[in-house]
Amino acid sequence: MSGLTVAVAEEPPGERRVALVPESVRRLTGSGLQVIVPPGAGAGAWISDAAFSEAGARILAAPEAYAAADVVLAVAPPAPSLVAALRAGQALVGMLQPLTSPDLVRQLAQRGITAVSLDGLPRTLSRAQAMDALTSQASVAGYRAVIEAAHAYGRYFPLLITAAGTAKPAETLVLGAGVAGLQAMATARRLGAVVRGYDIRPETRQEVASLGAEFLELQSVRSGSGEGGYARMLDESELAAQQAELDGHIARHDVVITTAQVPGRRPPLLVRRTAVERMRAGSVIVDMAASAHGGNVEGSVAGQTVVTGNGVTVIGADDLASRTAGSASAAYSRNVTALLLHLLRDGALAVDLTDEVQAGVVVTHGGEVVHPAAAARLAGQSTEGAAR
Amino acid sequence: MSGLTVAVAEEPPGERRVALVPESVRRLTGSGLQVIVPPGAGAGAWISDAAFSEAGARILAAPEAYAAADVVLAVAPPAPSLVAALRAGQALVGMLQPLTSPDLVRQLAQRGITAVSLDGLPRTLSRAQAMDALTSQASVAGYRAVIEAAHAYGRYFPLLITAAGTAKPAETLVLGAGVAGLQAMATARRLGAVVRGYDIRPETRQEVASLGAEFLELQSVRSGSGEGGYARMLDESELAAQQAELDGHIARHDVVITTAQVPGRRPPLLVRRTAVERMRAGSVIVDMAASAHGGNVEGSVAGQTVVTGNGVTVIGADDLASRTAGSASAAYSRNVTALLLHLLRDGALAVDLTDEVQAGVVVTHGGEVVHPAAAARLAGQSTEGAAR
Repeated sequence: MSGLTVAVAEEPPGERRVALVPESVRRLTGSGLQVIVPPGAGAGAWISDAAFSEAGARILAAPEAYAAADVVLAVAPPAPSLVAALRAGQALVGMLQPLTSPDLVRQLAQRGITAVSLDGLPRTLSRAQAMDALTSQASVAGYRAVIEAAHAYGRYFPLLITAAGTAKPAETLVLGAGVAGLQAMATARRLGAVVRGYDIRPETRQEVASLGAEFLELQSVRSGSGEGGYARMLDESELAAQQAELDGHIARHDVVITTAQVPGRRPPLLVRRTAVERMRAGSVIVDMAASAHGGNVEGSVAGQTVVTGNGVTVIGADDLASRTAGSASAAYSRNVTALLLHLLRDGALAVDLTDEVQAGVVVTHGGEVVHPAAAARLAGQSTEGAAR
Repeated sequence: MSGLTVAVAEEPPGERRVALVPESVRRLTGSGLQVIVPPGAGAGAWISDAAFSEAGARILAAPEAYAAADVVLAVAPPAPSLVAALRAGQALVGMLQPLTSPDLVRQLAQRGITAVSLDGLPRTLSRAQAMDALTSQASVAGYRAVIEAAHAYGRYFPLLITAAGTAKPAETLVLGAGVAGLQAMATARRLGAVVRGYDIRPETRQEVASLGAEFLELQSVRSGSGEGGYARMLDESELAAQQAELDGHIARHDVVITTAQVPGRRPPLLVRRTAVERMRAGSVIVDMAASAHGGNVEGSVAGQTVVTGNGVTVIGADDLASRTAGSASAAYSRNVTALLLHLLRDGALAVDLTDEVQAGVVVTHGGEVVHPAAAARLAGQSTEGAAR
C-alpha cells in the first residue's frame, strides 16, 4: 500500500471548524494514509499544530499540502483559491452544497476534480450514519442555537423560586423537529425552559414529547412528511393557514427557534413580520435557516443580529456549528474519516456509483457531473439562463 | 397620608438594570406612594415607558424626577450627575458599595443626603431575605456566568452519544459555594456538564452535593468559615498550600468559574498564571470577582475577555447581573421595594438605627456617616492618607 495522501484544507474566513481532528489523524495514519495539515488549520477549534504533529500529521503550508495531496478534506464549500490550487485527478471532500452552488459544481467538473459532498449522503441508510455530517452538524447547531438564545435573552431560562419571589421560565418554541430542532428542544429543556415544539410531520410528536417538550397541535395543516427525513413543501393555502395559526402561538413565546429547511430550496417563511410585531419586548428569535437564500423569519439577516422596533432580537444564525467549532469539528472529522475509508479500495480512491453511499455523495468525477440532482440543477440553471 | 414620591434613577452607562419594574410600581402606588420614572430608564431591561405608565408611574425627565422626589431608587452606585442633582433631606437607595467607595460616602454625608445601601443588609436575618439584593443579584450573576462560559466554550457542555461517537461533557469547576457559586453549579449541571465545587467552608459540602456537583476535597486547608455567610480571609501559608493543590485541579478542567469575594476587600487570588498555563487550549475561565480591585484570576481584566497565549479564554465578568437585566431588575425591584416599605412610618421615611435592618443599610443621615464599618473605612482612609 503506497499510502494515499490526505491534506486538510484551510477553511474560508469565518469558518472555525477543521475537517480533521488529531483523533482521526491517528485513525487515518493507522490505516496507512499520510496526513498533511497546514499550519494554523485547527486554530479556530483550538487545535494546535503540535497536537496534529503528535497524532502523526505533517505540518506543511497550504500550497504544498494541496500539491502533495491525493485528497483534500474540507468542511465549508471551498474558497476560489482552494479550487484554483487543485488539479485533475485530485479529490475534494467537504460539505459542498452542490444543489445551491451550481457554478462550483461546473468548475470542479471542468477541472477534472472528483468532488465528494457529505450533503448528499443517504440519511436513512443505517450503515451511513457514522458518515452523516448533516446530522452531526445540525445537532451542534441546535445546541448552539439555545446557547445563543440564552445569551441574548435578558432573563432566566429556568423557573427559579427565591426569597424575593418567583422567576418564570422562558417560554420557548422550536419550529421544526428535525435533528437541529430536537437538539434545540433538548438543550432548552436542560436549561429549564418550558419548551414547545412544532413540525408539520405528525410522526415527530413522540420524539418531541420524549424530550419533555410539548408538541404544538395546529388545526389547520395536514401531514407534511416528505422524503429522506425532510418535510415536504406545503402548498400556498396550507402555508397561509399554518402561518395564521402559528402567529398566535409565536406571540406568546419568549424565545422562538426556527429550523425548517428543505434541501436545495428557499427555506419556508414561518415567522412573519406581523407575528414578530406581536411578541413582547426582550423576546429572542434564532433563525437557523437564515442564509443568502432567505430564512424562516421575515426580516432576519444571515450572519447578523437585528433588534426590531418592538424590542425583539432576531439572530440570523448561519454559522452556529462553526461557533461551537470544537465539538463540530470532532464530529465532522469522524464523519469524513468514515466516508473516506469507505471510498478506498486497496489504498486508493475507488469511485463506484453503484454503491448507494457513493451515488449520494460523489458529485463530479472524470470531468463529468455524475450526481443526478446536481446535474439536473445545472441543467435547470441553463434553462433559466436561456429564458431570461 | 400625603404620599411619598419615589423616583427611579437613570443608571450610569453600561448598567442595563433598572431599580423598579412595573410590578413593583403597582405595589408602591397601591401603598399610596407616587412613582416617577425617567423616559427610557427601563430600556436596558426591555421595559417600555408605556409599561411603567400603565403600572401607574409618571414619566418625567430625570432632572425633574429627581427634583420632585423624596427618595431616589438606583441599582448601581450613582454617577456624579445624580449625586449633584440631589439635595439635603432626600434619600438615595441603591447598591452603593460604601466600603469600597469612601469618597462617595463622604460626599453624600456632606450634602446631607440619607444614603441607604442594600449591600449592608444583614444577610442572616430571615425577615430581611425579601430585601436581599446581594443574594438576588449574585444568583442572576451565577446563572449568567455559565451562559457566558457556554457561549465562549467551543464544545458541548453535556455528554452526547451519537452515531458519530461520544462527545465528552465539559468538566466544570466552580470555586466558591456562595449564592453565585451554587447557582453557577446548578446551571452548569442543568446544561449537562460534570461539575465540581470547592469552598473553604466545609459546611457547604451538602449544598454542593445537593446540586449534583462533586465537592472537591483539598487536603491542605482547614475550615475557612467567616462571619455573615462569607468566607474568612486565609493566612498566607494557607493560601499558598490551597493554591498549589488547586493548580492541579484547575489544569484538568475545561471551564473554571471563580466567585470568591470578601466584602470590602481585594478578592483572593485563586487561579494563578501558572495554573492557567497548564489548562488546555479552548478552556474558559469566568472570573466573577473581577473588578478594579483585582479578581480571583491572575491576568483577568474587569469588563474584558482576554485569550492567553495557550488558548485559554479569561472573562473578567464584572457586569453579569446587568447582562441578564430582565431577571436581575425584577428581583432587585422586589428587594428595594420591600426595603423601602420597611423604612416607612406613616408614609414618610423614618430612620431608626436601633432597627437591625436599618443599622445595616443606612450609611449616611443628617450630615453624618452613621454606618460604623463605612465610618471606620473613611477613618482608615484618612490615616492612610496621613501616613503617605
